[in-house]
Amino acid sequence: MSSAADASPENLKHAVWAQIRIADNRDVPNVCRLIRQMAEFERLTHLFSATEASLSATLFPSPAPPPFRSFTVLILELSPTPFPTSDADAGFSPIVRQLHPDAPAEDAEAGEFASPRGGGAVVVGFVLCFPNYSSFLAKPGLYVEDIFVRAAWRRRGLGRMMLAAVARQAALLGMGRVEWCVLDWNVNAIKFYEEMGAEVLPMWRICRLAGPALQAYRLQLHDKEGEAVAKEE
Amino acid sequence: MSSAADASPENLKHAVWAQIRIADNRDVPNVCRLIRQMAEFERLTHLFSATEASLSATLFPSPAPPPFRSFTVLILELSPTPFPTSDADAGFSPIVRQLHPDAPAEDAEAGEFASPRGGGAVVVGFVLCFPNYSSFLAKPGLYVEDIFVRAAWRRRGLGRMMLAAVARQAALLGMGRVEWCVLDWNVNAIKFYEEMGAEVLPMWRICRLAGPALQAYRLQLHDKEGEAVAKEE
Repeated sequence: MSSAADASPENLKHAVWAQIRIADNRDVPNVCRLIRQMAEFERLTHLFSATEASLSATLFPSPAPPPFRSFTVLILELSPTPFPTSDADAGFSPIVRQLHPDAPAEDAEAGEFASPRGGGAVVVGFVLCFPNYSSFLAKPGLYVEDIFVRAAWRRRGLGRMMLAAVARQAALLGMGRVEWCVLDWNVNAIKFYEEMGAEVLPMWRICRLAGPALQAYRLQLHDKEGEAVAKEE
Repeated sequence: MSSAADASPENLKHAVWAQIRIADNRDVPNVCRLIRQMAEFERLTHLFSATEASLSATLFPSPAPPPFRSFTVLILELSPTPFPTSDADAGFSPIVRQLHPDAPAEDAEAGEFASPRGGGAVVVGFVLCFPNYSSFLAKPGLYVEDIFVRAAWRRRGLGRMMLAAVARQAALLGMGRVEWCVLDWNVNAIKFYEEMGAEVLPMWRICRLAGPALQAYRLQLHDKEGEAVAKEE
């Protein structure tokens, strides 16, 4: 445990306290930067068009719905000192853990990713999830759209901590499943997920209707009596 | 168009009016039977555990949230006579189409699937969808969990009509994508979806954490200071 009374990028080399908490609108700048980094990591920056304004409008409506009932962002942040006991966010008590880093981390981005809640904490990752539904089970579940840890803090069990937090919450809420997607060539990720108890479903493929192909349906059903649609097949 | 003044299973052989509308709690018995048939069709009855009570509790909470903001069921029903102009369900005006069947249908289940809204209409299919989210687009989308047409009414463009209705709604709501899954061996379905403008993503695999493996996370983070979790990787 660090003996530092105050926090700084220098002290964060030895950060040993990790907290997972519900994000709110104050986290939008960090969330936007994290999503940008995720797009870079996946070499998909050509698909990235999020802005702070669009994320704020779509992820953090006011009033905020209860967590895990709609789009939900969890923030992972680290601190060289214990986190203050916070007011429990409605519906989700922050999860705090002590880490035992084998080696100090060099986090050149620590200043940029300062936690909006202060205390010298630094945001290092996030999860974005939302409810899905299994009609066979007649139960909701959670779908994990994104899970991301900044490069400086990988290989320390933090991704596992976030996924475990989502799984625990799903179980506590009586949900039937947690699901997410992985690229088939990412054998390390697949091994990691299987070790966490997940099954990788080999036969299902994702279909996506987007862009101009989606927009084409905006007017299609306006055809008089829909003959074009009804007779097409 | 049928000239029948009243409706009966016999008249439904020639049913020519199709309506897609928002389901409500009165549709639960039909929805439960449709999901059961879908499980039989997919040879997955061992996974089927839905009941009318569990579907009602999870799909039709009271008060009902606006359609397409949470779990949303659309009902497809047919009638030998035009549908009465209904009160627009909040947020979704029923879509009504005239069909031109090449051949009459023998629907032995017509009595069992009578529409709860009367008028001699018969429920022939449903869609279950809910919002998902793209962080790169910073936009919600719609995920189609189920789309099902009863056997007697297939190959008449009704599946297309339902998927087009969902796509149109997503476009009207400013959403970025409609997504769903297909089995990789179902080449006819894949061809159909591609003709509708969808892209089948070849490289993503679904990961699922469920059952005892999910329940194991319920307590895992209760370990004192979480050392088991944090040091595991």
